[in-house]
Formats: sequence, structure tokens, C-alpha cells
Amino acid sequence: MESTTQKFMQYVSKMQNYNEAIATLAWDLRTGAPRKGMEQRSEVIGTLSEEVFRMSTSKEMEEFLSILATSETPLDPIVQGTIKECKKEFERSKKIPAPLYKEYVITTSKAETIWEEAKEKSDFAMFQPYLEKIVSLTTEFIQHWGYKGSKYNTLLDMYEPGITVEQLDPIFVKLRQSTVPLVASIAESNHQPDISFLTKEFPPHDQREFSLLILKEMGYDFAAGRLDESVHPFATGLNPRDVRITTKYNPDDFRTAIFGTIHEGGHALYEQNIDPKYIGTPLCDGSSMGIHESQSRFWENIVGRSKPFWKKYFTNLTQFFPNQLNGVSLETFYRGINRVEPSLIRIEADELTYNLHIMIRYEIEKGLFDGGLNVADLPQIWNEKMKEYLGVVPTNDADGVLQDVHWAGGSFGYFPSYSLGNIYAAQFTHRLRSVMPEYDQYIQQGNLQPIKNWLTEQIYQYGKSQEPLEILRRVTGEEINPSYLIHYLENKYKDIYGL
Amino acid sequence: MESTTQKFMQYVSKMQNYNEAIATLAWDLRTGAPRKGMEQRSEVIGTLSEEVFRMSTSKEMEEFLSILATSETPLDPIVQGTIKECKKEFERSKKIPAPLYKEYVITTSKAETIWEEAKEKSDFAMFQPYLEKIVSLTTEFIQHWGYKGSKYNTLLDMYEPGITVEQLDPIFVKLRQSTVPLVASIAESNHQPDISFLTKEFPPHDQREFSLLILKEMGYDFAAGRLDESVHPFATGLNPRDVRITTKYNPDDFRTAIFGTIHEGGHALYEQNIDPKYIGTPLCDGSSMGIHESQSRFWENIVGRSKPFWKKYFTNLTQFFPNQLNGVSLETFYRGINRVEPSLIRIEADELTYNLHIMIRYEIEKGLFDGGLNVADLPQIWNEKMKEYLGVVPTNDADGVLQDVHWAGGSFGYFPSYSLGNIYAAQFTHRLRSVMPEYDQYIQQGNLQPIKNWLTEQIYQYGKSQEPLEILRRVTGEEINPSYLIHYLENKYKDIYGL
Repeated sequence: MESTTQKFMQYVSKMQNYNEAIATLAWDLRTGAPRKGMEQRSEVIGTLSEEVFRMSTSKEMEEFLSILATSETPLDPIVQGTIKECKKEFERSKKIPAPLYKEYVITTSKAETIWEEAKEKSDFAMFQPYLEKIVSLTTEFIQHWGYKGSKYNTLLDMYEPGITVEQLDPIFVKLRQSTVPLVASIAESNHQPDISFLTKEFPPHDQREFSLLILKEMGYDFAAGRLDESVHPFATGLNPRDVRITTKYNPDDFRTAIFGTIHEGGHALYEQNIDPKYIGTPLCDGSSMGIHESQSRFWENIVGRSKPFWKKYFTNLTQFFPNQLNGVSLETFYRGINRVEPSLIRIEADELTYNLHIMIRYEIEKGLFDGGLNVADLPQIWNEKMKEYLGVVPTNDADGVLQDVHWAGGSFGYFPSYSLGNIYAAQFTHRLRSVMPEYDQYIQQGNLQPIKNWLTEQIYQYGKSQEPLEILRRVTGEEINPSYLIHYLENKYKDIYGL
Repeated sequence: MESTTQKFMQYVSKMQNYNEAIATLAWDLRTGAPRKGMEQRSEVIGTLSEEVFRMSTSKEMEEFLSILATSETPLDPIVQGTIKECKKEFERSKKIPAPLYKEYVITTSKAETIWEEAKEKSDFAMFQPYLEKIVSLTTEFIQHWGYKGSKYNTLLDMYEPGITVEQLDPIFVKLRQSTVPLVASIAESNHQPDISFLTKEFPPHDQREFSLLILKEMGYDFAAGRLDESVHPFATGLNPRDVRITTKYNPDDFRTAIFGTIHEGGHALYEQNIDPKYIGTPLCDGSSMGIHESQSRFWENIVGRSKPFWKKYFTNLTQFFPNQLNGVSLETFYRGINRVEPSLIRIEADELTYNLHIMIRYEIEKGLFDGGLNVADLPQIWNEKMKEYLGVVPTNDADGVLQDVHWAGGSFGYFPSYSLGNIYAAQFTHRLRSVMPEYDQYIQQGNLQPIKNWLTEQIYQYGKSQEPLEILRRVTGEEINPSYLIHYLENKYKDIYGL
């Protein structure tokens, strides 16, 4: 048994090595790989992914899982967790024929490249056949996997185990019922923030320097990471000792880069602080997308858009942009960066209307898999929903249906995690504030390490060895509860808008 | 048979996909991968390399080679060439036990990282155990492979098929017998170039911009490549549509970056212009290291340090560095960049003394494998040979024995290719001048495309489908002949030094 366990863990570690290679190749594709090489690169990623898929569904894996299931000696918890993840993967993967999976990997890899060009040209028709193919392949996958209730539940479960449309619908309703009237009151408030200082010229070089400064303050370890540029910012944890993030420098608006960086930095803190004992196993990852997003959203919004944070860092920012911020007070700045306005781009949306962007994507995804919605109709549906929820309509698809990379990568079911992340983050913060009365004071002093340490101790270190609800219950003593987020948002924005 | 051929070519294409992944991971390690992740990355590269090694020596490969050897229908030339390369690799690889090979890959990957740090600290002792291990593993390899005459011949053959110590010794003697007295006359000339303008302050950003300009002029395709920075400049052809180069910006001397860039750009032109029909086969590569170096050295020295080249581009350079080059005439510039002076660093050596640097490495390598030379004695031997051939001695190992990455990567037998490259390049140029009388005129007009096109037609397009001597004979009608290089160097430097 000892020797089987060792062989199993070596086998799994080999798969993890392949995964690191794939993640590095994907990072490279998105941070400056030459255009002409992209098609061949997709083949390379396809070959490696096929091998990981083969290993995860092999006779060898089947035998390992079967032998280890009958183990009489107690197994190490890491081995147990690894078996659990491999078994889940095995059962999911063995239902998909290998050529179908390869086709999916190659299609999504190419689609990401095409999406980038289509977005640049604002040409949905260019991207449409790829998206149709991805939806059709995903639908085939769901048929192979099976589903309970909605087909979409099977996709949701991949990102947030156990979450269903049936659970999510009332949570989103409750959140919408609070958000929509609040947004309406805000629109009517006669205490609107000054935002003229947001849209001056901010040289990308200085934005980068300030982003680096904030990452350092957060405790991001640059010896175990790097900051690059990409069209859509992302974080990728190759392993806890190499966690890379990207951002995007908008020369007319520093918010894109700074809050994007803090967001991805939050993901990165999570990945960098997973206990290294999990390296080489599938437990060396975040617990779920929702828990992951709770960390990026916590750092971006709850910390990064708070008054105590800017009481500390506004001075630094004015050193980088003395002319642009000349005469802007801290209060004006704080209210400006928290201005609420229904807008077109999700990643640039304010904290309050953000969840409405998610609901649009959530409903489109439900429609694609359960509601008979056609891909060809997406630009129109998108625009209709934008009008309905946010009251604004994009004039081109680049600012609309083409704005996010997720669908090009086949990540259906991912978007709801962002809002779940907001909900979890508010729950964690409530708990953190009650055990750390100095919370605001620490932030105001630029002493972010006690907060990072608490999160590491409570969440980060465990990686994927605990399930999201297990973590939520252990840390907060509660189930998923949107009330904390609603309360936080109402308090914050009523204060800002004098309501 | 048809189906066996197809399966064989798919099998080989899969290996090439792994090789592209490995090359990308290695590129990443050398262009900014986070320090803490390097050890884990070495494991990943080790895993993939082990898989390529396994595939190249598998029963499946053995069967393919055996079945295809008996083919009665004539095989496509690409298939034939692929069989030839796979057979060579199979016979070489199957003699090395797989764990020994994995140890070698992991050791060299780690050694490259350690070398970088050792060089920074000028601490040979830090690097020594790694180098000892690499020499010892390589010696074991030679035992497994067998050898004729010198053990070192087996290593030379890997970079330049057919070349032996017995052939190389007289070629190097002839070259040394011409170089040493010429260097001596130059030292005594009273017509020394002014070089004061070389060591002003040249902002890296401007060096980069000028490097990009020259690469564009050479016909380097940026949609199929990119320019980055690394400690030791290199070119890596992932495939003809993704050929990346790096350079190094020395703020006190623009020559490092510019001539380094042109050098790597020469390698890159070769790789970018291999016929795409070879993609996915081992023929999608340079013919040999020597032929590869003939192209980098041709572009760097024969074109890039020629008077016609600067008649065209000196104006551009002065636009980037107007103050630094204020009052410098074209003639002064040309003579300055071609100044001959025995110096410490190979990659910064002038064209004439360069071959003496190679001879030192060549003799040390012979010593390590045939002469009982100990790694521990390398710093001393290095310094003694520097004194003997070049009359200068480094004061620290960073400027001496630690200066090159090659040994850290296990590339023994590679260095002679640089001088062979110089020799081939002079032979090719002699031929090119005779078929293209407008050669100097084209360069002077900045019309480099006819030259690139001739090289593509004569050399680049064939990739590895022809052997080095086959190419040399077809293009020049001759065997290896150092006389053209000697003649070129004597003409050029007697003119510059008024001898």
C-alpha cells in the first residue's frame, strides 16, 4: 500500500507538472506571444492537455483509485484529498471521449486568439462560429455528464460545488431588490461626486509604478511572481512560488490598472500563501472560484476602495500624479473612485452595479443551455438586458457582448462566482472585524500584514483541501448569506451620496 | 505502409509539440520567471524532457523505424529526412539510461539558474559542484555512446556532424598563425581608432528602439517573434512562426546591445525562413550549429560592422544618440566599432580576436574530456590561457571562466561552431559577392532584402534537410576552407589600421 500511495502521488505530481507547463504556455499566449505562432501554440497546448486528460482517465488512474479505496491503513490527509479530487475528475472526464475533449481544448485556445482580434475590430460575426462551436461542445459535455434540474447546474457545479440555479435565483433576486432602488436613489441624489480628476492623462509608466507599490504593500511576493500587461487582466498560479498577474493601463483613467491590479493581487495572495506541502497535488489551488473571487473582491473593493486605505495611500498617489490630482481632496477622491453610474464594461463597473452585470451574463448562460437561446442572437439579447438592468446600451459589440474573455475560454458558469465572491467577502469581513477591532486602524496605517496573515491562517493556507461551504462555516459560522453584502453596500453608498 | 507513415509523422509531431513547450518554458526561465519558482520549473522541464526522451527511444519508435526501413514504395523526402534524424537520435538516446538522462536535464536546468547567481557574485565555487556534475554526467554519456580518437570528438559531432579534433586542430592553427601577427601589427600601428565615443551614456530605452529598427531593416518578422532582455543574449526558434531573440542593454556601451541584437537576429532570420512544410518534424531546425553561427556572424560582422552598412544607418544612430555622437564622423565611427583590442569578454570581443577566445574554450573542453583537467582548476587554467593567447587576465571569475552560459547548459563542443561559423560565413560571402555584384551597393542603400532572399533561397529554406557540408559544397563548390576568412580579416583590418 505504501508503495502504491507513493506511485500514485508521483503520477499525480507528473500531471501537475504538465498543468504548470500548460498554464505557462497560456500565460505566454496572453502576454505577448507573436501572433503568427498562435495557431501552432494551440496545437502544443492541445497535445499537453490531451496527455493530462489521458492520465486523469487512464487504466492506471482507475487502478490507483480502486486499490487506494480499499486501503486499511489510514492515509495521509493530503493523499486522501488528492484521491477525492482525482476521483471527481476521473468520473467527470471518463464520460467525455478523448477526441471530443481535444477538439474542445484546441477550439477554446484558438477562440481566445480570435476573440482578441474580434474585440479589437468589434466584429461579433468573426467570433460567432467559435462561440457556437464552444456552446455546442459544452452542451455535448453536459449530455455526457448528466444533470439535475437545469443543464446549467452542471456547469455551475464546476466552479462552485453544490450551487444550483434554484439556490442562486433567490440570492440574486434579493440582491437585485436591494441594488436597483439604491441605484435609483443615487441617480437622484443632489450630492453627486466630482469625477473630473479621473479622466486626465495618466502615463502608463507611472500607473505601473504605483501598481507595483500597492502590490508590495499588500504583501505580494515579487520573488514568486511578476506583473505584466494583457487585454483582459488575470492571475495565474503556476505553483505558490510562481504566481503571475497582469493588468491593463488605460492612459485616460488610472482606475482600470490600479483596481485591476489590486483585484488580481488578491487572487495572487491566495495562491502564493497556499501551504507548499500541497505542491504537486490538485489541492494546490483555490477552494473554489467563489472563494477565490471573495479574495480578489475583498482586496479590490472592501479594502482598496475604502476610506482608511486612501487615508494612507492617497499621498503616495499624488506623488505619482501631482498635476492630475492637484487640488483634489481625500474626500473628493474617495467619493470619486466610488462613484456609482450604470456603465457598459463589467471590469470597469462600480462595486454596486457590478452585480447587475453578472446577472445579465448569468441569465444569458442559463438561456444558452436551458432556454434555447441562439449564439447569433447574443448581441441583441445583451443590449436588451443592458437596457433593462442598467439603463445603458453599448453602441458596439466590443463594449458589449465581446467584452469578456470567459466564453472564448469555455468558462460558462464562472460569472456567478464573482457575485458569490462579493457575498462571501462581506461575510468574511464581518467576521474579521469582530475578531480584529483594529481592522480600520491597521488599514489606515498601511499595516496590511495582520489582515493578510488572518486570511492566510483562515483561508489561504488550506488551498483546495477544504470545500467552500466548509471554509465559510468554519470562518463565519454561517451558510451563504447575502445580507452582509447588502448591509455593507447600503451603509457605504448612503454615506457617500448623503442618503 | 501509408498508414504507418502517417502514424509515424503524427508521433514525431507530438514530440515536436513537447519540444516547443520545453523551449518556451526555458525561454521564460531566462527572460524574467520569478526566482522562487525556478526549482519547481526545473522539475516541469525535467518531466517533459523525460517524455520526449521516452518517445524517442520507445518500442513504438523502434517499430516505426524498423517497418519504414523496409518500405518498398518510395517515401516522401520529408519522411525520409525525419526517419534519418529519428534514427540518429534513437541510436544515440537508447544508449543512455532514462534516469541518467533525467538527472542530466534537471542538473543543467538548475545549473543555469545557479550560474546566473554565481556570475553575479563572481563566485566560481558556488557553480563548481554543478559543473563537475555536468562534466561527470557528460563523460558517462560518452562512455555509453562510444568514441573514435578523442572522447571530445563525440561532443563535436553533436553540433557539427563529422568534425573531429584532428580536422579542427590544423584549421585553428592556420587561423591562429594569421591572427596573432596581425593582432601584433595592429597593437603597434600608429593609426589607432578613436573610441572615446563608445563609452558615453546610452539610455537602454533608445538602444532598444535602435535595435528594433535594425531588426526591421534586416527583415526580422515581428509578427513571428519578439525582442526581450536576458543576462546572456540568445535566439530560440519555437517554430518558424515564433522565433524569439533577447539582447542585453549595457548603459555605458551601445555595442553590446546592437551587435548582440544583429547576431541573434541573424539566427532568427534563419529560423523564421525555414520552409513551413518542415513544421512538426526534426528538419524544422538549422542544419548545424556551425551553419547557424555562420548566419549570426555574417549579419553581425560581415554586414553589421561593414562600412556600407553604416554609410546607411549611421544617420539613424545619430538621431537616437545626437549628443553622444556629436562630432563623430562616419569614418571615425566605422574605425571605432572595429577597433581591435585583446579583451576579457567573448561576446564583446572584436571580430579578429574573437577566434582566440574560442580556441581557449576549445582547449579547455578537450582537456576536461581527454586531458584529465579538473573543473576545480578551471579558473586558473582560464586565466593562464587568456594571458598566453590574448595577453590579458581577468581579475574576477565573472569576467573570466563564469562569463558564458554554455557549460551550465551542458553544451560542450558548441564553442568551435562559432569559429566554424566565421569560416563558413566568409565562404558564403565570397560566393554571394560573385553572384551579386551589387552586394555593397545594396547594403549601402539599406536594401537588405536581396541578401536575405539569397540566403533564404540558398540556405534558410532547407532547414535541417541538408547536412552542413552538403550546403557548403552546393553553395560554394568547396570544402571547409579558412582562407576566405583569413583574407577577409587581413584586408579589412589592414585598411582600418593603415598597415
